[in-house]
Amino acid sequence: MVNKRVLLASRPVGMPTAENFTLTSDALETMTAGDVLVQVLYLSLDPYMRGRMSDAKSYAEPFKVGAVLGGGTIGRVVRSNSEKFHEGDIVEGQCGWQQYALVPAATLRKVDPTLAPITTALGILGMPGMTAYFGLLDICRPKAGETVVVSGAAGAVGSYVGQIAKLKGCRVVGISGTDEKCRLLVEEFGFDAAYNYKTTTDHSAKLKELCPNGIDCYFDNVGGVISDAVFSRMNTFGRVSICGQISQYNNTQIELGPRLLSTVLVKQLKVEGFIVIRYFERAREFYTDMSQWLREGKLKYRDTIVEGIENAPQAFIGLLQGENTGKMLVKVAD
Amino acid sequence: MVNKRVLLASRPVGMPTAENFTLTSDALETMTAGDVLVQVLYLSLDPYMRGRMSDAKSYAEPFKVGAVLGGGTIGRVVRSNSEKFHEGDIVEGQCGWQQYALVPAATLRKVDPTLAPITTALGILGMPGMTAYFGLLDICRPKAGETVVVSGAAGAVGSYVGQIAKLKGCRVVGISGTDEKCRLLVEEFGFDAAYNYKTTTDHSAKLKELCPNGIDCYFDNVGGVISDAVFSRMNTFGRVSICGQISQYNNTQIELGPRLLSTVLVKQLKVEGFIVIRYFERAREFYTDMSQWLREGKLKYRDTIVEGIENAPQAFIGLLQGENTGKMLVKVAD
Repeated sequence: MVNKRVLLASRPVGMPTAENFTLTSDALETMTAGDVLVQVLYLSLDPYMRGRMSDAKSYAEPFKVGAVLGGGTIGRVVRSNSEKFHEGDIVEGQCGWQQYALVPAATLRKVDPTLAPITTALGILGMPGMTAYFGLLDICRPKAGETVVVSGAAGAVGSYVGQIAKLKGCRVVGISGTDEKCRLLVEEFGFDAAYNYKTTTDHSAKLKELCPNGIDCYFDNVGGVISDAVFSRMNTFGRVSICGQISQYNNTQIELGPRLLSTVLVKQLKVEGFIVIRYFERAREFYTDMSQWLREGKLKYRDTIVEGIENAPQAFIGLLQGENTGKMLVKVAD
Repeated sequence: MVNKRVLLASRPVGMPTAENFTLTSDALETMTAGDVLVQVLYLSLDPYMRGRMSDAKSYAEPFKVGAVLGGGTIGRVVRSNSEKFHEGDIVEGQCGWQQYALVPAATLRKVDPTLAPITTALGILGMPGMTAYFGLLDICRPKAGETVVVSGAAGAVGSYVGQIAKLKGCRVVGISGTDEKCRLLVEEFGFDAAYNYKTTTDHSAKLKELCPNGIDCYFDNVGGVISDAVFSRMNTFGRVSICGQISQYNNTQIELGPRLLSTVLVKQLKVEGFIVIRYFERAREFYTDMSQWLREGKLKYRDTIVEGIENAPQAFIGLLQGENTGKMLVKVAD
């Protein structure tokens, strides 16, 4: 059986290009006891993967050059040497950028396809959903009536964050990169307002207009000049959840910006970075709330689905350029 | 009776100069019912006053040009129309940069001169002590065995912070501006190590040497390049308490520096600014612990005392240039 895989050919410098990836076709390894053979159906693409393509020390191991790229997947069990899984089961796991994977049973989690579309296990009911849920509720702790600003608002995490904040009774303002996304944020996801950062020159003035009572909570996916402006409009005792800094991921050296610590001091802000892994032990809270909200129609989501494992590199580059709306997925098989 | 006072002559641009202050001699106003006439004995000089000399919006009202400068004081009651105070009482209050003040009784707090030297009411048992206590314990929450770095370590707040961290079982490293201060931090205040930032070019390498297990807590009084380096050496889940940014107070525009939010994200740091006022309602906790530690000889302090109200402006400029060790006070009368 042939397995198409995408390997990291070289470490990107700046924005990744097609040359940083290699598509190969390999034979599947021989199965060993306890392993499960999974056919990948969907591959999750996430901005944090850019960090793992570099060799800088970070919270996650760098991907190895010449090895298959890692990533969250939804798949179907093809063969199982484990009593926990059977042929045909739908499973979520870390199978990476490939059509098939042999993985230890302990790394897989069964997904019930009758409860929700299976892709939600990589999105609103998966890692991005958990990121939004805890990053907003545990770090920002928004109160009803407060103003919440979300950057990268039309991405998977951002679109969930805004809706959760609305459920908590907040005024929610999103920042996004196209007029179409801004319209979607307001009309589909129920944000109170949104603006296009690419066509806005004075962010601070725009935020003042859209947040007349200042900003109490900021959920940051992007960093850079957008965050500079949001900090300038924060209220005393504001809370900032640093979830991503996508504007900085392709920098080849650390960018300079206005120093923010004086603002943090004078406004008594609390600024906290987080990686969702720290919340895994509290997964049940997330799953209980989010699956109920989803069932009740209180949460919506969009996926951007690219077909074919061979198109994963281009889809990933597109993700870093904001071409997705909601969750970016690669459909690897039916 | 003549009252020598220091007025704000003009708002400083950059580092204050003598021309920004005026010394006047005025007659005391006629006393009104309920007021207390206080002879100022000691005036507290604090870095945050620099902010109030500008007219930028901040947590405290700007000082008015042409008016006497505000500030914490220890004084002796000369005449009282209040039943709460009697002639000869020692009182702490906000009498400002002058020899005498008529103030409402409600703004004064009696100080018992038999418990500790009266100057401690402006230092280790006063606002700077409370700043150190809550800024370290409530925001950094240091645990025994962790490494705590303090910038501005030989100032009043910094020298208390380091000693409290030692009492909590931490490794404590101070950053200060002279070799003499660094020696004092280690030999007198019990810091594990200290270094002179003015003679150090590679802060990050120096911090690596002095903090071989990384940095868990950072109590920041200064900001700027020192903080850049400390952030680069923070451990995962590190806590940063932003108490002051003295390196930035005289800037005429916001300084550029390397963006820190990616570091905050990757290391999952919690960075919080605070103004001590928020802890006033918890003053008893502070006073109970600190006065006991002081009685038991577990805390030490130094004061830098400048004689004469007419020398207050130069003393304040000296404070901003780091000429003090410990608390900077102006002795106004015996």
